[in-house]
Amino acid sequence: MTFSVSILATGSELLDGRVVDTNSNFVAKELSERGLKLRRVLTVDDDMGELVAGLRELAAVSDLIITSGGLGPTTDDLTRDAVASFFGVSLAEDPEGRKHLEEFYRKRNRPIDTNNLKQALLPIGSTIIPNEVGTAPGFIASRQGGPTVCSLSGVPREFKSMFMATVRPLIEAKTHGVEALHRVTLKTFGLPESTVGKLVEGIGLPEDVVVSYRAAFPEVHVVLKAPQSVSLEAHAEAARNAIGKSFIYTEDPSATLGSALHHLLLGHGETLATAESCTGGMISEIVTRTPGSSATFKGGVVAYDNSIKEGLLHVAYETLVTHGAVSAETVREMAEAARTRCGATIGVSVSGVAGPGGGTPEKPVGTFFIGISTASHSFQVQSLYVSERTNVRMYAAYVALDLVRRTVLRLPLPKSYPEIR
Amino acid sequence: MTFSVSILATGSELLDGRVVDTNSNFVAKELSERGLKLRRVLTVDDDMGELVAGLRELAAVSDLIITSGGLGPTTDDLTRDAVASFFGVSLAEDPEGRKHLEEFYRKRNRPIDTNNLKQALLPIGSTIIPNEVGTAPGFIASRQGGPTVCSLSGVPREFKSMFMATVRPLIEAKTHGVEALHRVTLKTFGLPESTVGKLVEGIGLPEDVVVSYRAAFPEVHVVLKAPQSVSLEAHAEAARNAIGKSFIYTEDPSATLGSALHHLLLGHGETLATAESCTGGMISEIVTRTPGSSATFKGGVVAYDNSIKEGLLHVAYETLVTHGAVSAETVREMAEAARTRCGATIGVSVSGVAGPGGGTPEKPVGTFFIGISTASHSFQVQSLYVSERTNVRMYAAYVALDLVRRTVLRLPLPKSYPEIR
Repeated sequence: MTFSVSILATGSELLDGRVVDTNSNFVAKELSERGLKLRRVLTVDDDMGELVAGLRELAAVSDLIITSGGLGPTTDDLTRDAVASFFGVSLAEDPEGRKHLEEFYRKRNRPIDTNNLKQALLPIGSTIIPNEVGTAPGFIASRQGGPTVCSLSGVPREFKSMFMATVRPLIEAKTHGVEALHRVTLKTFGLPESTVGKLVEGIGLPEDVVVSYRAAFPEVHVVLKAPQSVSLEAHAEAARNAIGKSFIYTEDPSATLGSALHHLLLGHGETLATAESCTGGMISEIVTRTPGSSATFKGGVVAYDNSIKEGLLHVAYETLVTHGAVSAETVREMAEAARTRCGATIGVSVSGVAGPGGGTPEKPVGTFFIGISTASHSFQVQSLYVSERTNVRMYAAYVALDLVRRTVLRLPLPKSYPEIR
Repeated sequence: MTFSVSILATGSELLDGRVVDTNSNFVAKELSERGLKLRRVLTVDDDMGELVAGLRELAAVSDLIITSGGLGPTTDDLTRDAVASFFGVSLAEDPEGRKHLEEFYRKRNRPIDTNNLKQALLPIGSTIIPNEVGTAPGFIASRQGGPTVCSLSGVPREFKSMFMATVRPLIEAKTHGVEALHRVTLKTFGLPESTVGKLVEGIGLPEDVVVSYRAAFPEVHVVLKAPQSVSLEAHAEAARNAIGKSFIYTEDPSATLGSALHHLLLGHGETLATAESCTGGMISEIVTRTPGSSATFKGGVVAYDNSIKEGLLHVAYETLVTHGAVSAETVREMAEAARTRCGATIGVSVSGVAGPGGGTPEKPVGTFFIGISTASHSFQVQSLYVSERTNVRMYAAYVALDLVRRTVLRLPLPKSYPEIR
């Protein structure tokens, strides 16, 4: 027996393009955690006829209909009326809902009027779903032999909060006995998505292990999912080996390259300093997103103009003139200056041609150099990433972070950004 | 007569949460340009029964049904079959489609097999929609008295390309004589969305002027739309005055605060340098997103550790000890050092408590100071933005950019970040 869940989303803002419906995706992901998928998603306008027709259509194929939106105080908020009409009942004021509204407005010193109170009206026989983060409460209604309808606020934050408190337990109860899936997440950087896909598919996973890929530019995340009864670890290990373990920077679904690097530096007692040209501060910005990053990040210089490369980073005038700002020699001097001037154990530098202008036949748009400097070792890499400005900058910043990671862990460099010898 | 357009989106990836449907939003925005909105959006699984039922339901209320997805070469790509079944016709190979496929695979040196060729099968009587960016062609089918069905690839890039080439002209032809809307976009920073909303609503716009708000954190964008017959300029001017012109940094829909500031600095012959602590390089990263920003941005220092504030920025040890790193005195010295050491005409600095840790009763999380230094004038502001780390950092970075803008234009400072006197 499959438990069939559909969504009825309502609102002009969804149909005229002002808002992208993210609530459906949220529910879809929640269901996917339990091995289910949505049956249908239907988006209609704030219109009684459309809403009731939508409920009827979805009722024919669904055990649970989640409505999103149309619970506010204005005249185009019609979900309460539509659900009541669908079940053939009237609306009546819910005492708990009224109390919640009165409190909400009292706390904010705002007057409450008839329109606001409309939000406490619920279809007779339904159960209120409190709204902890907004005004409009939701409700659950059902009748014998028909579907259950859960009506939630369309505001994503309120939708999520109400869903977690009420609908999720309902789905869990209905799918009791359905095995939850377990999963392994491999976050990779340094290989294109198509390559990662081919490598993983090459290991021939059994049918009950589902693999999915998410290109979170410039990273590629691989998720392996299987029922609890399947031992996932052996398959995960095959996938790690196929991809190459040095490309997997974390298996923690909530970690980022920046946070993983922070913890790595912390664990090895290392500190970082940056010298950025074309990335303009992106590397330090990414590193400092992580709370507590001051323990591993000293600071850096954004040397956008050559005068800064000379003045603050002491890159030799001859180096800039002879080799150019975008060269292995320049990033070598930049990385060393970053490390020594900022008092860090590792210095990383970037200089490149982010575009759209500035390319030459020898150094086309997308060319970048990265320098790494430690007390005992220094090297430079050159790479080319043909794309538009934003992507070139982001890719170069990630290569820089990845090279710091590889330096700390003494990992080999990938073919796409080899060491210059 | 309204021209009624619906979307039938198909694909497991939409119903299990792997992919957010952005094609519907794209079409909704396209329709909104012509004063239309979508009638319904229905998402169903890759299943013949579901697809045909979906087409029938939408056909009852739509003049045009756009299908998205299900045109690929695998067994779960069923849109061709479903549309053929809906119209009661068979599939036949389209010679143009076959030629396109053969060429596509030849160019890539990849073998073509029966599965691939399936993509050249179209419902008899339909017209091919070429796919310039992928393999699967789409098609247009219709019958007397029924709706027109346009089947497009679900891959967003392919969907858009096919839509622009074929569906958009179709919609334009069907809505010929419908007035296109004209619009004014006011991009603001420095006021909360609710305040902007109240100020604009206070001017009492007529019904044929539609106002919409988009909170693009930390900015608020206001869009006024009206038919060509309505003179929008007088209403736009009333809105500008209600909001306060100093809060509107551009009316160019494609400009950002960073690009607007770049052009402003360029026009005034000014150059910028940064000294960032809690924002970690975010200000310089935003500024350098704009191509050509090297003409107005010299560079900066990310002084995350106090040693960098002293070493590279020459902030006095006494200042750091007496007033702390997060203080008006420190950002004053940081801004001046940024300007003089980087050879810019304007220096801007930030120091603050981004959180989650590090707050004190006097300087709670969300407190930040900004310093501005020019050859003739120097000032500092203090502000508090209570939110989580990411938002505090981004808000502080935008305040810094906005203060540079206000300095160049000699505009007064808003109440939310007043000058310290």
